[in-house]
Amino acid sequence: MQIKDYIEIVDLKLDEYIPITYPEDIFKSMRYTVLLPGKRLRPIMCIESAKLFGAKLEDTLPTACAIEMLHAQTLIHDDLPCMDNDDFRRGKPSNHKVFPEAISVLAGDALLTFAPQVILNNSKNLDYEKLIKVLNEYFYAAGAYGVIAGQVVDIENERKQNKGSELSQNQKAEILNYLHLHKTGDLFRLSLRAGAIIGGADEKSIEALTAFAEKFGIAFQIADDILDEEATFGEIGKTPGKDKEAGKLTYTTLFGIKKAKEDLSELIKECRKILSDNNFNSEIFEEILIKISKQAA
Amino acid sequence: MQIKDYIEIVDLKLDEYIPITYPEDIFKSMRYTVLLPGKRLRPIMCIESAKLFGAKLEDTLPTACAIEMLHAQTLIHDDLPCMDNDDFRRGKPSNHKVFPEAISVLAGDALLTFAPQVILNNSKNLDYEKLIKVLNEYFYAAGAYGVIAGQVVDIENERKQNKGSELSQNQKAEILNYLHLHKTGDLFRLSLRAGAIIGGADEKSIEALTAFAEKFGIAFQIADDILDEEATFGEIGKTPGKDKEAGKLTYTTLFGIKKAKEDLSELIKECRKILSDNNFNSEIFEEILIKISKQAA
Repeated sequence: MQIKDYIEIVDLKLDEYIPITYPEDIFKSMRYTVLLPGKRLRPIMCIESAKLFGAKLEDTLPTACAIEMLHAQTLIHDDLPCMDNDDFRRGKPSNHKVFPEAISVLAGDALLTFAPQVILNNSKNLDYEKLIKVLNEYFYAAGAYGVIAGQVVDIENERKQNKGSELSQNQKAEILNYLHLHKTGDLFRLSLRAGAIIGGADEKSIEALTAFAEKFGIAFQIADDILDEEATFGEIGKTPGKDKEAGKLTYTTLFGIKKAKEDLSELIKECRKILSDNNFNSEIFEEILIKISKQAA
Repeated sequence: MQIKDYIEIVDLKLDEYIPITYPEDIFKSMRYTVLLPGKRLRPIMCIESAKLFGAKLEDTLPTACAIEMLHAQTLIHDDLPCMDNDDFRRGKPSNHKVFPEAISVLAGDALLTFAPQVILNNSKNLDYEKLIKVLNEYFYAAGAYGVIAGQVVDIENERKQNKGSELSQNQKAEILNYLHLHKTGDLFRLSLRAGAIIGGADEKSIEALTAFAEKFGIAFQIADDILDEEATFGEIGKTPGKDKEAGKLTYTTLFGIKKAKEDLSELIKECRKILSDNNFNSEIFEEILIKISKQAA
């Protein structure tokens, strides 16, 4: 299986898991963002993490797709006018530009509980203990200790910056690290830990994959910041340079492009070391690391 | 135990279950609406449902409090400017009037996954099977098939009405019934079913309580509509007559106060019949029915 095969299977399942029933608009709005063509990095990493421990694809797909639904939820709400106010996402109008804003808020809400329902209703071979562990990971990542903590700090920092608050370079670096760990990292953490749990991994392996996820999350975000600075709308499907303009903390504005690229290279090296130290042999992980490392060039 | 004792215990636990940690604003915003003084009808009905089957209070409290958190979540998001745009709730400024709107959106999001986390982390005596069943009920009620379905139909109907859409009395009655069943009824359904599951009730009892919940939900909403028409701000803690003004379908505008009061009386009779037919002896349920029936006078 190659990345493009995984994307195809995940897309098929995402489509299958969200049928349109009454009231249609809520399901259409959920489907609109969930099914926007994407890299499906989080579900693929979940599947691949489980595969390291011998799990079957069918046992991982519900959780993998649930994580993509959670990811879509964060995109829908992050794009809202009262949040980042983004009109475009993945090259298409944002959810609230296609549906009334109220429906977009509710579609995000719905995905938050629809996703774990997909896990419970479709993971026929997972025993209760694994299901509860996977759900616990999901709740942690989705909630006030996970991506939401990251988003809150992001928003509040942006407001402080725009009011002319003076932070030292160290303080900014600390906030940025927190942001990356939670807003970006926690979904990768969820993907890798949930996959490992489904596969029946031991505690040591789960911890190793957690460390990998944290480093990968930061690497991914640095690569994204570099792209946001260097790319065009056509390449990233959203308005480039918007983060910088909005007064958002980014790795590139804080440390400059040169150091961002060096640190990205270093993090990818550390990711590879964790994989090899633990004999986690995965061509897919390597392929993903190569893709991310292109921004370091 | 009387209703006021239950309220005290539920309030204590709600306070305990949501400690304030970093980033503080999200937890403060969650707590603000969850801890507004309220009747705690849903948690009390959950506890009382479990008690019918011999469950201990400590085993029901986490789920009961989680349902109150979910209820608070619906209030926070329903009050948003893009939804019902309400400035007051329970006599106090709405969440987004106290916190930035973005924080209120995120506080609602956070509660959706925080609540089931409270169930998982605190229900030490519930086995995995019961936990999974309770979570399934939670996901159903919280999601696109539950309260959100009700809210979507409410919003869309309001817009159609304001655009001058012509619906027959029968069509309006059908929409109103759907609204009441989901927007209002599904949280009571969750309370009673989850309580029964925790108590280890058989299928027949769970079905009887489900029927009770559906009738009670409609009765509760009719009583609320009567109150909205007849009460002052001081009595209901929010702007009275607002639903009618907004072009919202309500029981009283559709059928008139007289029929609303008659139907309310009839529903309460049916609720009592279900309780007595099944030997569900509960002073608390009776007390709640008496309170609701005051609007029928």
